[in-house]
Amino acid sequence: MTRDFRAVGRDLSNWGRWGADDEIGTLNLITPARVAAGAALARTGRVFDLGYTLSSKGPQIGLGGRVNPVHLMSMTGQSVYPDGAGFADDFIVMPLQCATQWDGLAHVFYDGFCYNEVPASSITPQGADRLAIDRIARGVIGPAVLADVARFHGVDCLAPDHGISPGELDATLDRQGVTLAPGSILLVRTGWTRRFTEGSAAEFMSGEPGLTLECCEWLREHDVAALAADNWAVERYPTGDPGAIMPVHYVLIRDMGMTLGEMFDLEALAADCAADGVYEFLLAAPALKVANGVGTPLNPLAVK
Amino acid sequence: MTRDFRAVGRDLSNWGRWGADDEIGTLNLITPARVAAGAALARTGRVFDLGYTLSSKGPQIGLGGRVNPVHLMSMTGQSVYPDGAGFADDFIVMPLQCATQWDGLAHVFYDGFCYNEVPASSITPQGADRLAIDRIARGVIGPAVLADVARFHGVDCLAPDHGISPGELDATLDRQGVTLAPGSILLVRTGWTRRFTEGSAAEFMSGEPGLTLECCEWLREHDVAALAADNWAVERYPTGDPGAIMPVHYVLIRDMGMTLGEMFDLEALAADCAADGVYEFLLAAPALKVANGVGTPLNPLAVK
Amino acid sequence: MTRDFRAVGRDLSNWGRWGADDEIGTLNLITPARVAAGAALARTGRVFDLGYTLSSKGPQIGLGGRVNPVHLMSMTGQSVYPDGAGFADDFIVMPLQCATQWDGLAHVFYDGFCYNEVPASSITPQGADRLAIDRIARGVIGPAVLADVARFHGVDCLAPDHGISPGELDATLDRQGVTLAPGSILLVRTGWTRRFTEGSAAEFMSGEPGLTLECCEWLREHDVAALAADNWAVERYPTGDPGAIMPVHYVLIRDMGMTLGEMFDLEALAADCAADGVYEFLLAAPALKVANGVGTPLNPLAVK
Amino acid sequence: MTRDFRAVGRDLSNWGRWGADDEIGTLNLITPARVAAGAALARTGRVFDLGYTLSSKGPQIGLGGRVNPVHLMSMTGQSVYPDGAGFADDFIVMPLQCATQWDGLAHVFYDGFCYNEVPASSITPQGADRLAIDRIARGVIGPAVLADVARFHGVDCLAPDHGISPGELDATLDRQGVTLAPGSILLVRTGWTRRFTEGSAAEFMSGEPGLTLECCEWLREHDVAALAADNWAVERYPTGDPGAIMPVHYVLIRDMGMTLGEMFDLEALAADCAADGVYEFLLAAPALKVANGVGTPLNPLAVK
Repeated sequence: MTRDFRAVGRDLSNWGRWGADDEIGTLNLITPARVAAGAALARTGRVFDLGYTLSSKGPQIGLGGRVNPVHLMSMTGQSVYPDGAGFADDFIVMPLQCATQWDGLAHVFYDGFCYNEVPASSITPQGADRLAIDRIARGVIGPAVLADVARFHGVDCLAPDHGISPGELDATLDRQGVTLAPGSILLVRTGWTRRFTEGSAAEFMSGEPGLTLECCEWLREHDVAALAADNWAVERYPTGDPGAIMPVHYVLIRDMGMTLGEMFDLEALAADCAADGVYEFLLAAPALKVANGVGTPLNPLAVK
Repeated sequence: MTRDFRAVGRDLSNWGRWGADDEIGTLNLITPARVAAGAALARTGRVFDLGYTLSSKGPQIGLGGRVNPVHLMSMTGQSVYPDGAGFADDFIVMPLQCATQWDGLAHVFYDGFCYNEVPASSITPQGADRLAIDRIARGVIGPAVLADVARFHGVDCLAPDHGISPGELDATLDRQGVTLAPGSILLVRTGWTRRFTEGSAAEFMSGEPGLTLECCEWLREHDVAALAADNWAVERYPTGDPGAIMPVHYVLIRDMGMTLGEMFDLEALAADCAADGVYEFLLAAPALKVANGVGTPLNPLAVK
Repeated sequence: MTRDFRAVGRDLSNWGRWGADDEIGTLNLITPARVAAGAALARTGRVFDLGYTLSSKGPQIGLGGRVNPVHLMSMTGQSVYPDGAGFADDFIVMPLQCATQWDGLAHVFYDGFCYNEVPASSITPQGADRLAIDRIARGVIGPAVLADVARFHGVDCLAPDHGISPGELDATLDRQGVTLAPGSILLVRTGWTRRFTEGSAAEFMSGEPGLTLECCEWLREHDVAALAADNWAVERYPTGDPGAIMPVHYVLIRDMGMTLGEMFDLEALAADCAADGVYEFLLAAPALKVANGVGTPLNPLAVK
Repeated sequence: MTRDFRAVGRDLSNWGRWGADDEIGTLNLITPARVAAGAALARTGRVFDLGYTLSSKGPQIGLGGRVNPVHLMSMTGQSVYPDGAGFADDFIVMPLQCATQWDGLAHVFYDGFCYNEVPASSITPQGADRLAIDRIARGVIGPAVLADVARFHGVDCLAPDHGISPGELDATLDRQGVTLAPGSILLVRTGWTRRFTEGSAAEFMSGEPGLTLECCEWLREHDVAALAADNWAVERYPTGDPGAIMPVHYVLIRDMGMTLGEMFDLEALAADCAADGVYEFLLAAPALKVANGVGTPLNPLAVK
């Protein structure tokens, strides 16, 4: 039976762990030593880009007011100056969380509070006064591990109602022969990206396999610094719990202070990991410094 | 006397060097081995974020149609669901080159052509058909060197009409005791960022110190993979050459295929380099994968 | 057999009719006397608003890069000042032709020219240098007539492949007992709006009944000043003519200089006209003065 | 001595006057008979457009987060199809109140309430749930009177600290020989638009002459249906009252339910009125139907 997310959150809370004024949560676990350890995983220098393309053909279908990016040119190949040269220039209009993204710590709250007792009321039309995405400007870079749960089950893509348990994470890492040291970034592959690339945005957004509430404790025990997945919300959706819409979000972001990554394209990276048996790498995934922002688009790079 | 930029461009051209279909230019010089060499420079794991904050208080004053970002919330701390939890969400409207940025290879052209003989006419209102910014999705990450020209001259900020010569680059690197191996990223500090942070956007945009046309050959000889500076256009502006508005842009981007970075905030990094005498580091500076885009905002991370 | 649109356009051309520098075309036909005549049609003062609502639930499905409006609040009921009062404020992002609209005379061109020999090349990324929508700032207001073709046929909505002929326009006006004086605005009802309001955006955009190329001559003979319809492109689409995508647009806008209105919601107005037998009224349909714009959203008012 | 705006608002309140569910306030005063009376004022059919141009060179300087419109082309004269024809198309990004505008009734509130006891809390990031600008879709069209206060004083432009009194409105109308019947739209000219057109956006926004709190009672006595001026906030700013930032807004919009127009360009119209001595006309000033919007841009037409 599913526990109440509030009780889980209370048990796993990181509020105060890094001081009353902390605004970056579990990213504190990526110490300089961990960054250096991450860099040491970039052995051959092969790079994998994990970002979805930002385009009008992206995965958004209007849910929650999110739309796909609108890209417009303000100057084109027509724009030529008297010296015979020209410049092209462009604009973008987009939700900060319309494709590959980090959820900032101000993205989610409940019972009036965000992480570390920051009042939800501090997120106004002018944005987040605290916990804004620019607070993690020096992150996210560090050692990362892929847990390829889809491959563990021998499928291209988990079923939409598949809820990943802590035991599956253990078994997957065990099968892969990799350990998860404290202060690591964990990438979880469900294969769900294929629902978008081989299906459609509507199929992709219709639900998804993902983590269950039980995984929160596991993530706390492993002191995971940041978590990302290849689906659109990390967690299984719908949860099946009528009392909570996105309980994993609530506990991880609001109680544990964990930055969550969504819509990371893990297909090429996972194929490479399966081929060489190496499931750890440097992840360079910097946030844009959007003042008062609650999320950020990005193109994460994995370097093996 | 200043040479004609077209003649310089012809001499230094990289067209065809990496094949007739190449779309990433000098970023080809960052081989996996060079990435690995870059990662090896991340010795202590200290991270410096080089991005300007994206906000309405940014450096744009409307030149060339560029404005500062408009950040708007689509959901705030008010947005609470029946389960007592809520989500905040946000949008951004911005020129892709309004703050810290990479100029893509389709950003500049002359005499009808971009890099590698791509017709300028291929950059339409729908964006760049070739050379788009998403082509460099697996870049930019690699070994980087800071040339702190302002500090070399013992000033916080170079004078606005200061044109940096190849000799100054040599002397600066020499004084710093660092060498520039082929396939490195070069960051040049002029101190001009202070004109914005300690002055105003209008002062910052009124002109700038920077590289001169003569530096192009030096950059070619050193096989620099990408070049970034802390001013808004890399090169001195105005150039003093009535025949060319931005000749360094033309030669580096269009003839040599070099991705240029602008408005990198190098202040904290430079202070650290001066303190420990180490002027080389890993630069993790991924581009957003904007389909058909000609530039990208970013928050580059330097790791020492 | 369908005539070539170029030949039709040549025959019906209004180029030069109002001078070589004219930028408003057939709106010249709405003289002050015609405006006064229009005002005299506002007999009882009953007002009908013909605009579609601007919202994320609008009729756009992404065709031609058009999206529905994005409306975002920059201040809400939360935004309270020290005096206890507050202001709410908002932004919109939208294609200028995403809902009820006027097509400006720079919206369409062929063989390199817009209306009155204005080169198509003058429409750059900076917008229309001539024929821009703000040129019609003093329009569009004048006497208008509704031709309810759907009702003439006794249907709620014409079939999608129904091409309206000049004869049908005559017969409809005749049945309605109304004449069309030179310098009038003509509104044509196909009922197609119901495909959107009772169906979906996708059904609405899948094709449409509308005017055929033969109507152009009829419109010229009647010296119609502006034409609007309740479908999304005035003319039948697809045309069935493999040689021309939107020939009615080409002839009316480019050759005749006629401002076209699309997605006018004529349902309530038409019901009223059927009830009282009065099919003429004042139309007040001002364009927004968008500098260099090629279209404008609007909310036209019909006053009977 | 200035009265407290709350006391004034209480005295002049229109809450409940048109029913508990009313959402359009004093626009109820424009009955069909008044619309017809307005149309009868369009005697010669001469049209004056009162809208500011929407462009990047508009009057905004960033106050309150408002910026000037960003106009971008999605298709240009380059966009040619196989049939030899092409379409140009465009987008706009703008605050709804960046230039000539109607303030909707949800734009202002105090002590937790908007007009007619609508809670301020109903204006969320999703916009105004009630009192939204699309509620006035069938307005604003009706009989209007110009009070040219600047001309009354024999100046091009009132001094920035000039507070217009009820007595000045009476004297101005008296001198002009015009009366203000109930259910009319009043346009007040201060000449302040010249501060923008002959000066700069910064000068224009630095303060302004305008109505004083005392005028509210006068407007109530005359049952003015809507009020517009040629400055940016109708009322004098700053007010000189430390206890209230914009008291005229509070009373007119929130207590009286009056739609306010700002930045109406009255220069050409006023010159014409001075020339022919006719200060009344039809005003056709429809709002865009922005769902949940709190304001609207527009281009009002005056017809004499």
